[in-house]
Amino acid sequence: MSDFFQGTAPLKYDPEAEGLAFRHYNPDELVQGKRMEDHLRFAVAYWHSFAWPGGDPFGGQTFDRPWWGETMEGARLKAEIAFEMFEILGVPFFCWHDADIRPEGATFDESKRNFDEIIALFEEKMESSKTRLLWGTANLFSHRRFMSGAATNPDPDVFAWSAATVKNCLDATHRLNGENYVLWGGREGYETLLNTDLGQEMDHMGRFLSMVVEYKHKIGFKGQILIEPKPQEPTKHQYDYDVATVYGFLQRFGLEKEVKVNIEQGHAILAGHSFEHELAMARELGILGSIDMNRNDYQSGWDTDQFPNNVPEVALAYYEILKAGGLQKGGTNFDAKLRRQSLDPSDLIAAHAGAMDVCARGLKAAARMLEDGALETARRARYAGWETPEAQAMLTSDLDTIARRVAGGGINPEPRSGQQEKLENIVNRYV
Amino acid sequence: MSDFFQGTAPLKYDPEAEGLAFRHYNPDELVQGKRMEDHLRFAVAYWHSFAWPGGDPFGGQTFDRPWWGETMEGARLKAEIAFEMFEILGVPFFCWHDADIRPEGATFDESKRNFDEIIALFEEKMESSKTRLLWGTANLFSHRRFMSGAATNPDPDVFAWSAATVKNCLDATHRLNGENYVLWGGREGYETLLNTDLGQEMDHMGRFLSMVVEYKHKIGFKGQILIEPKPQEPTKHQYDYDVATVYGFLQRFGLEKEVKVNIEQGHAILAGHSFEHELAMARELGILGSIDMNRNDYQSGWDTDQFPNNVPEVALAYYEILKAGGLQKGGTNFDAKLRRQSLDPSDLIAAHAGAMDVCARGLKAAARMLEDGALETARRARYAGWETPEAQAMLTSDLDTIARRVAGGGINPEPRSGQQEKLENIVNRYV
Amino acid sequence: MSDFFQGTAPLKYDPEAEGLAFRHYNPDELVQGKRMEDHLRFAVAYWHSFAWPGGDPFGGQTFDRPWWGETMEGARLKAEIAFEMFEILGVPFFCWHDADIRPEGATFDESKRNFDEIIALFEEKMESSKTRLLWGTANLFSHRRFMSGAATNPDPDVFAWSAATVKNCLDATHRLNGENYVLWGGREGYETLLNTDLGQEMDHMGRFLSMVVEYKHKIGFKGQILIEPKPQEPTKHQYDYDVATVYGFLQRFGLEKEVKVNIEQGHAILAGHSFEHELAMARELGILGSIDMNRNDYQSGWDTDQFPNNVPEVALAYYEILKAGGLQKGGTNFDAKLRRQSLDPSDLIAAHAGAMDVCARGLKAAARMLEDGALETARRARYAGWETPEAQAMLTSDLDTIARRVAGGGINPEPRSGQQEKLENIVNRYV
Amino acid sequence: MSDFFQGTAPLKYDPEAEGLAFRHYNPDELVQGKRMEDHLRFAVAYWHSFAWPGGDPFGGQTFDRPWWGETMEGARLKAEIAFEMFEILGVPFFCWHDADIRPEGATFDESKRNFDEIIALFEEKMESSKTRLLWGTANLFSHRRFMSGAATNPDPDVFAWSAATVKNCLDATHRLNGENYVLWGGREGYETLLNTDLGQEMDHMGRFLSMVVEYKHKIGFKGQILIEPKPQEPTKHQYDYDVATVYGFLQRFGLEKEVKVNIEQGHAILAGHSFEHELAMARELGILGSIDMNRNDYQSGWDTDQFPNNVPEVALAYYEILKAGGLQKGGTNFDAKLRRQSLDPSDLIAAHAGAMDVCARGLKAAARMLEDGALETARRARYAGWETPEAQAMLTSDLDTIARRVAGGGINPEPRSGQQEKLENIVNRYV
Repeated sequence: MSDFFQGTAPLKYDPEAEGLAFRHYNPDELVQGKRMEDHLRFAVAYWHSFAWPGGDPFGGQTFDRPWWGETMEGARLKAEIAFEMFEILGVPFFCWHDADIRPEGATFDESKRNFDEIIALFEEKMESSKTRLLWGTANLFSHRRFMSGAATNPDPDVFAWSAATVKNCLDATHRLNGENYVLWGGREGYETLLNTDLGQEMDHMGRFLSMVVEYKHKIGFKGQILIEPKPQEPTKHQYDYDVATVYGFLQRFGLEKEVKVNIEQGHAILAGHSFEHELAMARELGILGSIDMNRNDYQSGWDTDQFPNNVPEVALAYYEILKAGGLQKGGTNFDAKLRRQSLDPSDLIAAHAGAMDVCARGLKAAARMLEDGALETARRARYAGWETPEAQAMLTSDLDTIARRVAGGGINPEPRSGQQEKLENIVNRYV
Repeated sequence: MSDFFQGTAPLKYDPEAEGLAFRHYNPDELVQGKRMEDHLRFAVAYWHSFAWPGGDPFGGQTFDRPWWGETMEGARLKAEIAFEMFEILGVPFFCWHDADIRPEGATFDESKRNFDEIIALFEEKMESSKTRLLWGTANLFSHRRFMSGAATNPDPDVFAWSAATVKNCLDATHRLNGENYVLWGGREGYETLLNTDLGQEMDHMGRFLSMVVEYKHKIGFKGQILIEPKPQEPTKHQYDYDVATVYGFLQRFGLEKEVKVNIEQGHAILAGHSFEHELAMARELGILGSIDMNRNDYQSGWDTDQFPNNVPEVALAYYEILKAGGLQKGGTNFDAKLRRQSLDPSDLIAAHAGAMDVCARGLKAAARMLEDGALETARRARYAGWETPEAQAMLTSDLDTIARRVAGGGINPEPRSGQQEKLENIVNRYV
Repeated sequence: MSDFFQGTAPLKYDPEAEGLAFRHYNPDELVQGKRMEDHLRFAVAYWHSFAWPGGDPFGGQTFDRPWWGETMEGARLKAEIAFEMFEILGVPFFCWHDADIRPEGATFDESKRNFDEIIALFEEKMESSKTRLLWGTANLFSHRRFMSGAATNPDPDVFAWSAATVKNCLDATHRLNGENYVLWGGREGYETLLNTDLGQEMDHMGRFLSMVVEYKHKIGFKGQILIEPKPQEPTKHQYDYDVATVYGFLQRFGLEKEVKVNIEQGHAILAGHSFEHELAMARELGILGSIDMNRNDYQSGWDTDQFPNNVPEVALAYYEILKAGGLQKGGTNFDAKLRRQSLDPSDLIAAHAGAMDVCARGLKAAARMLEDGALETARRARYAGWETPEAQAMLTSDLDTIARRVAGGGINPEPRSGQQEKLENIVNRYV
Repeated sequence: MSDFFQGTAPLKYDPEAEGLAFRHYNPDELVQGKRMEDHLRFAVAYWHSFAWPGGDPFGGQTFDRPWWGETMEGARLKAEIAFEMFEILGVPFFCWHDADIRPEGATFDESKRNFDEIIALFEEKMESSKTRLLWGTANLFSHRRFMSGAATNPDPDVFAWSAATVKNCLDATHRLNGENYVLWGGREGYETLLNTDLGQEMDHMGRFLSMVVEYKHKIGFKGQILIEPKPQEPTKHQYDYDVATVYGFLQRFGLEKEVKVNIEQGHAILAGHSFEHELAMARELGILGSIDMNRNDYQSGWDTDQFPNNVPEVALAYYEILKAGGLQKGGTNFDAKLRRQSLDPSDLIAAHAGAMDVCARGLKAAARMLEDGALETARRARYAGWETPEAQAMLTSDLDTIARRVAGGGINPEPRSGQQEKLENIVNRYV
C-alpha cells in the first residue's frame, strides 16, 4: 500500500457513522429484488480522478500528485493508487481514456507500447481486484494533432491515426473484458462553419463509426458500442449534440441497432435538456446504454463536471432508468472532477463517497415511487382515452374520415388538469 | 382604400431617397442571374402583423386596430388592410394561420364557415393582387383545448379536432395555390415528464404527420409539407427541437423524402444553434424547405421575434441558402412582430421595409462572397487531402488495414492553421 | 362558504396522512426556539392565485373561475374565495397588487373607488381572519399606459399617474397594517437603448423612490419599503437588475438605510445568481427585507414562477436567512403560479400545501445545519489566519509596508483545500 | 528583425488593396475633427498574442512559438517580436500582465528581478517605438497560490503577496508612463458559498483597492485606476459582476471618484448585458474608463475572447463612447485571442488588422449617426414632455401634491410609439 490515502480503510455501510462511511449506499441491500450494487454499477473515471491537474482556462495545475510527469514510472504509480482507491470505495467498475493511463510517446508505436504495458498491469491487478472495466475509450481530443477533429479532421492522416488508436483501445477493452466501448467526439464538430464542410465531415464520421462496429464484430467483442452526446465545448458545435441528434445520425448510417448512448448529466444540461429527458428519450428510442453521472452548474455555460449532490434530481434520473429495466451492461460512471481547490487525497474519497450516497438515495427514492405507483397510475389515467377502440382506430384512419366525425358537432374536447404540482408533491414524498 | 396607412404609396427602390423607400431591395435587379424578388420570395406573416395585440406576459394589448374583436366584419376589414399592406410593400407572398384570419366560432362547424368565408375573400382579392400564398397552417396552440398538445394530446378527441382542422387548412392552402403547408408544433411537447408518455406522444405525432402526407397526395397538393423546428416555449420541451432532431423523427416514420423544414432564426437561437448552422444542416440532410426570417435577442431566453436588423448575420444565412441552390418553393417569411411599443401603422411599414433592405443587403453580400470564391477555395484547400486515392480508399477500408499503415511511423500528421480570422476578414469585405 | 373548494377543510399537520395535509409544516413546532409559522411567515400572492388566467405568449386563458370579468361583483367573489383559501391553508399573510383586487375603472377616480371598496372588504374580512397583510404594491406594468415604464416613462403624465397610484396603494397598505410595501419595476427599464435616456430615467426613478420614502414617514407607516430586483422580462433590461445593482442605486440616492429588497428565487436565477447568493449579498449589505419564494426552471430563459419543489435548494436559502437573524418584518410570499394545465381548484390547494412542506423541510434542515455547526466551523477555520494581529494590522497598512514584508522571502503561501465536496456532503446529511 | 513575421512590412491604409492592408483604418483621417488613431487608441494585449499557448479545457498547447519555455531568453525574444508586431500594425499602445512578460521565479524576489529586467527592456525599446503603454496589471489568478483569490484570499499571506505584486506592477506602469492601471479580479469571487465569508472578502477587497489608490497618489501616478467587471468564470461568482455592481462597490468604499471601469464586450455578454449597455451605464455613472474590445460568442457560456467582427455591434459601442466624449485616457485594447486552430504568425497579423478595420468602420458609422442627428432628435422628442415647468416641478414635489393633480381626471396619458424599428432602420443607413 502507498501512503497516498494515509491508510484509509475500505468504506463500510453505516448509517449512524460519525466519520467516513456510506450512510445510504449498501451494496447488498435489495432494491426491487436486485442488489443495490448491481443496480448502480458504479465506476470511477480514471481521467478526472488521477490525470486532471486542477487547471482551468485562467490557471494551471493546483493538485500535487506523486505521479505527475509523463513517465512510465508515474503511470505505474498512478495505477497502483487508482486500484487502492477502487478498493477503498468498493466500486465494481472503472473507466479509462488511453491518454490518461500512459505517457504520450514520441511516435505512435511508442505510445502503443506504453499503453500496452499499462493494460498488462491493469490485467494483472484485476486478477485480485473486484473492480472490472465498465468501458475504455480513446482520447482523440487533447493532443494538438486532433485540434481540428479526429474522424472529422480535414487531414486524412488524422483520420487514420484515430482509426488505429480506436482499434488499439477496442482491442484492450476486449482483452480486459470491458462491458462497453465509448466514442466521445471531443472535437467532432466545428469552430466555424466558414472553414467546415459539414456534409463531408458527417459522412466521414458515419463511416468511421461503421468501421468500429464492423471491427467489434470481427474480434467478437460482446460489449456495447456507445456514443456520448455533447452539444458544444470545446467546439462551437459538436455533431453528437444530444440523444435525438445521435439517433438521427445512427439511423442515417444504419447503425441504430448497433450503437447506444452514454448519457451525461452535464452534457444534457448544456444541450438545454434535463438529464431525465435525455434518459427517457433514449429509452423510448431503444438506445439507452450507460450514464455519466455528474452535475453541471445550471448557471455556468461550460462543462463543470461536478460530483452529483442533489438527491431529487438524481431520483428522477434513476426513475427513468428503472422504467427502462435498469442499466443492463451500462453503469453509473462518475465523470466528475474535484473542484480545483479540493487538493487533498481525502477530498477524492469524500467526493466519491458522497456521490455514491446521493445515487443510492436517488435509486431508493425512484424504486419507492414506482412501488407506490401513484405517478404511473396518474400517467395512465391521463392517456386512458386512447385505449378505446374508436381512438385506436383513428390511428389507422385518415384525415377525411376523422374530419367527418368532427363535423356536425360530434366532439367538443374539454381540457383536464395536468396536475403537475400534485405529481411533484408525490415525488417529494419519496426524495 | 382604407385610411389605415394614410395613403402610403407603394414603396419604390430608390437608394438616395430621404423618405420611405427601399434603399437596397430592388426586385428586378439580377443577382447571380436571377431577379432579387425571385431569390428572396418575401412573405408577410398575417398573424404577427394583423392579429397580435401587443401583449406580453406582464401586460395586455397595446395596439389599437380598427378590426379588433372576434367578428366577421373585423376579419374582413383586417383582410382588406392586409392586402393594402401587401401592395405597399410589393411582397410576392403572405402566410396565415387559420386562427388569425377568422373569428373562433362556438362550434367546429361555425369556425369552419368563418374560415371558408375569409378564404373565399382571399381568393377574390388574390385575383387582382400580385401577392400569392407562401403557406397556410393551422393554429393548434392558442385555444385552451390545445393546452396539452394537438397531435400529442392525451385526449384523442383533441387529436381528432386537430386532424380535421389540418384537413381544412390544407384544403384551403391547396385552393389558394399555396406553395407550402407548415406544421408548427406549438404545444407538441411537454410541461413535465411526470405526466407525459413520451413514446406514445411521439408515435401519435408520427402517425399524424403521415396522415397529412397521405392526404396531400390524395388531393394532389403539389406544395411542400414543412415542419418548423423549435426547442421550447411555450412548453418546457418541444419534440421538433431542431433540424437534426426533426430529421431523426422523419426517418423513424419514413417521411424524410416527404417533409422538409421551415427554419426560423429565433428558434435556431433558442436551440443553441446559429441560423446558418440550421440552414447548412438542413441542406446537407436534404430537407431545407423555407425560412422564417426574424431575429431573436441572443440574451433573452424567449422567442422575441424581432425584425432582422443585422446584415452580417443575414448574409451568412443567405450564403448557406445560395449554396443549397436557393429557396426553391420556399420563401423568406417575416415571422416577426413589432415591438409592443411600436403602435403606429407606419411602424408596420417601416419594420418590413427595413427588414427587406437588410435581407437584400445580405443576399447581395452572400452572392459577392460566392463570386469572389475565396471562402470556397479555402474550404476546398482545407479538405484537399481527401481527394487522393489513398484517402478515398481508406473510407472503404477497415480498422486493421488502417492501423497497419499507421504502425511503424507511416504517418505523423501536423496541424495546419484553420485561418478563422482570415476567413472572417473575407466576409467583412462583403457585408 | 362558497363551493369553490368543495368544502375542503383547513389543512392539519399530520406526517402520516394519506390525503391532503401538511406532512412537514407544523406551525407551532419550535425551530431554534421560534414557532415555525413565525419563522416562515407564509403569504399567498393574490395575483397569481386568483387573477392570472393561465395564459402564456402562445395561448390565452385556460382557467375557469366564477369571478372572471372586470366587475365589482367578480372582485368581491374573488375576495371571498381568497379568504376561504387563506383559511384552508392557515397562512398568516397575503399580498396584493392593486390591479388584481379591483376592476380597472374608466378613469383614475373610478379605479380608486373600486380599489377602496375592496380594501374596505379586506379590512372587514381581516377582522375575523388570522391572515394579515404582508405587503401591498401597485401594478404599474399591465395597463398599456405603462408600456414605456412608470417612474421612468418618457411621458411625465405617466409618472404622475404612477405616483398617485403608489400613494393610494401605500395608504391602503397602511390602513390594513401591512408590514411592508413593495415597489416592483415591471417596466422600469428599456426595450432598446436607441430610444432611451438612461441617465434621465434613473434620475426620475431615484426621485420617485425618494418621494415614496418621504410619504411613508409623513403618514407614519412603520413597514419596510422594498424593491424587488429583476434583470429583464418583460423589458430587455430592468434597472433593478439584482441585489448589488439595487444597492448601488440606493446609495446613489441616499436611500440605503430606508429601502430593503424583496428577493425572488426566479429573478435571482434570471440574473445569473443562485437564490442563496442574492440572500447572502443582501444580508451582508444590510438590505435583506423579504422573499418571494418560487422556482424558475434553470433552462427556461423566462420567469416561470413555479412553486418551489427542491428541498436542498430551499434549505440553502433558509440557511442564509437564519444566518441573517430570520425574516423579521419580511415573509415567504409564494410568488408562484399554477402551471397553466393545472385547472382545478384543488390544484391551487395542493400546490401551496406542497410548497409549504418544502419550505418547512428546508427551514428545519437549515436549522439542523446551523446546530450541527460543522459548516460554520469549517468556514471560520478557513479564515482563521486573519485573526492574528499581524493580519489585522495589514488592513490598516499600505502597499509599501506590505511589500517590504514580502520581499526577501518573508512569506511563501501554500494553497489549502477548499473542501467543497466535503461541505456538500455535510449539507446532504441534513436535506 | 527576427524572421517570425517573415518580413511583413508595416501595414498601410489602402482601401483598394488586394493583399494585407487596412481598408478602413486610416490613422490620420479626421473623424469629428480628431484623428482616427486618437479616437480609437488601439492596444495589443501581450498576454493573448504572445503568451497564450492555444489550450482549452480539453486540450493543450497548439501554437509553436520560438519563445516557449519559462526562461529569460524566451522572455527577451518574446519582447523583440512583440515590438515587431506593434510596428507592423502601427498600434499606439500595448498592455501587459506581469506574468506574461517574465518567467515565474522560484521566489518573489526572483520573479521581481525577472520582471524588472523586462520592464527595463521595454523602456529601452519604447525609446525608438511609437507604441506606448496603455495599461499594466498584475496577474493574480494563474498561479496556484491564487486559487482561492488574491485580495479576497482566506490566507492573509496571499493578500500580502498580492499587495506587493500590485505595488511592483504599479511602479513599473508609472515608470513606463502608462496611462492606466487595471485591476482584474480573476479569482476575486467564490466557487461555493459554503466555504466563503462574503462580507469579509468584500471588505478586504475594498481595503485592498483603497491601498492601491493611496499608493497611486503617493507615487504621483497620474493615470486612471480601472476595475474590469466580469460576472463569473473561472469562479462561480465574481464580485466585480458588472458596471452597476462595481459602482455600488466603489461608493461603499468611497472610491467612486477615484476608480473607473475597463469594460470588456465578452464580460458584458456573460453578465447578460449588451456591450453598449455597459458603456452607457458607465457613462451615466461617470466611471467610463477604457474598453477591452473583443467578441463573445453569444451562444457559448464561457469567455471566448474572439476578435471583434460584427460592424453593426461595434458601431453601437462607439456611439455610446462618442456620446461620452470619447475614450480620454482609455483605449481600445484587443483583449482577444486567436482561435486555437489559427496557428500561423500571419494569423496574428490578420486578426488584428481585421479587427482594427472593424473598429474603424464602427467608429465612422457612429460618427455619421451622430452627425445625421436623427437618433438624438428622436430621443429628445420622446422625453420632450419633461421640459415643461410643470413636469420639472413634479420632481421636487411630493406624492400628495401629485395625487391631487391626477384625481378628478386631470390627466389621462396615452401611449406613443417607441419607434424601435424606425430607429433600427436609421442605424442601418450607417453601418
